[in-house]
Amino acid sequence: MNKKQLVEQIIKKKSFLCVGLDTDIEKIPSHLLTYEDPIFEFNKQIIDATSPFCIAYKPNIAFYESLGIQGWMSLKKTIEYIPKNCFTIADAKRGDIGNTSKYYAKTFFEWLSFDAITLSPYMGEDSISPYLNWKGKWSIVLALTSNAGAMDFQFIMDENQKPLYQRVIEKTQQWGTEENLMFVIGATRSEEIAEARKRAKNHFFLIPGYGAQGGSLQDVCSYALNEEVGILVNSSRGIIYASSQKDFALRAGEEAQKIQKEMEQILFDKGFVNHLF
Amino acid sequence: MNKKQLVEQIIKKKSFLCVGLDTDIEKIPSHLLTYEDPIFEFNKQIIDATSPFCIAYKPNIAFYESLGIQGWMSLKKTIEYIPKNCFTIADAKRGDIGNTSKYYAKTFFEWLSFDAITLSPYMGEDSISPYLNWKGKWSIVLALTSNAGAMDFQFIMDENQKPLYQRVIEKTQQWGTEENLMFVIGATRSEEIAEARKRAKNHFFLIPGYGAQGGSLQDVCSYALNEEVGILVNSSRGIIYASSQKDFALRAGEEAQKIQKEMEQILFDKGFVNHLF
Repeated sequence: MNKKQLVEQIIKKKSFLCVGLDTDIEKIPSHLLTYEDPIFEFNKQIIDATSPFCIAYKPNIAFYESLGIQGWMSLKKTIEYIPKNCFTIADAKRGDIGNTSKYYAKTFFEWLSFDAITLSPYMGEDSISPYLNWKGKWSIVLALTSNAGAMDFQFIMDENQKPLYQRVIEKTQQWGTEENLMFVIGATRSEEIAEARKRAKNHFFLIPGYGAQGGSLQDVCSYALNEEVGILVNSSRGIIYASSQKDFALRAGEEAQKIQKEMEQILFDKGFVNHLF
Repeated sequence: MNKKQLVEQIIKKKSFLCVGLDTDIEKIPSHLLTYEDPIFEFNKQIIDATSPFCIAYKPNIAFYESLGIQGWMSLKKTIEYIPKNCFTIADAKRGDIGNTSKYYAKTFFEWLSFDAITLSPYMGEDSISPYLNWKGKWSIVLALTSNAGAMDFQFIMDENQKPLYQRVIEKTQQWGTEENLMFVIGATRSEEIAEARKRAKNHFFLIPGYGAQGGSLQDVCSYALNEEVGILVNSSRGIIYASSQKDFALRAGEEAQKIQKEMEQILFDKGFVNHLF
């Protein structure tokens, strides 16, 4: 899915919601454990319930990988089940030398057919560029994350008082374009979102940390929106674990719809859509 | 395997060689493709031929992951085949929030029973600490890598003219000990190896970039050895692809032995062992 198609989906669905599929075998409703593939069954029902309200899905690869062969099979079935008009992100946070990166890219872009993958920038250009060479695919580079540990290195100031995460945003742009490169910008620090947007005016931001980790949607949007919307706001646990009972999918759908409604109002207020549903 | 046992193996085998299993289906000898599991067959023969001369194996996870389910099965068989007196490293370079890290740790420490995993520090403490809680297991944190892209961020100077990789070494030590934390320090820049050693006197270093990427063994050792040897020097392609013919395992064994002999001489010269084989 290219940038134009992504923006079209956002306008059409009046939503920039990404649902994080952090599907944990220990947290899914117990009645699903009798299914042959409980992880896939959970995802399938979550996708059915939420896909009218979101434009992207982001499976967190760790959760699938930790289940071994079975986990990878559940992941493959999930990615094949996601409707084709949804953008798909492998939250894998890979980052290795060039020769190795090619193989990770093959895994997520070819075998699993994801649209995008999250990447860690620590190893520099040859750990990012190989992914950028895959036509029609996206790299989403960690700049400012929403976890507590973000403070440890991402805010180290260089000689010119510029924090590392801003150096990452500036440097990485030299390797990709607005058509194949996005940034992870956590929702937890509004001023920093504004700083990030100044440095990457036209790139999409994937914004985690909304909800469970704090950061209001209005706040995030006032700093992060650009002329083409330019953001995907992720929510994982708040949606998929809205209920641990048999009504989990219904409740997930309701939570997703609630967020979509809020997004719709923001898109209307900012003039991106000219009527509410 | 704890630090004491690792040092004992080094002294016993007179070697601190780690063999990187970057096993590439497109590079292994073509006669192996008739086997049911060519990747495992290749690794098995490489392990048989090299295990007298090395003390560690480091499968590069990307190569296995890119083959899907079959690749993970080959990896599992490989890790089970490696002799128990060898240290095993999952070269996975993971790094994610705390909740997610636990699942990656489960994958590599429990399902696959690796002794150690390589980790990227970009996301800070909660992306490293969960791995350090696994008893008897090791985290190997990227500090200074041996690829060209290392120059992009790892050498960014802070306000006190200290490069990022040194900040990573200093900060990360607050979270772990010499018994559960090692650092990746590339072989390509001798002065930097010395700087790293000043800042982590007793931690083991995993040193890639010897051979193919440059850096002589004598040079590396003169800067990196500590009182307990304290280094694992990795070679991947130089050993496993020494020949692309039917003699690949024999030639891999010869290459490993050549390096082991050089290591033995260094260990003798430095007084770690008191006789040559």
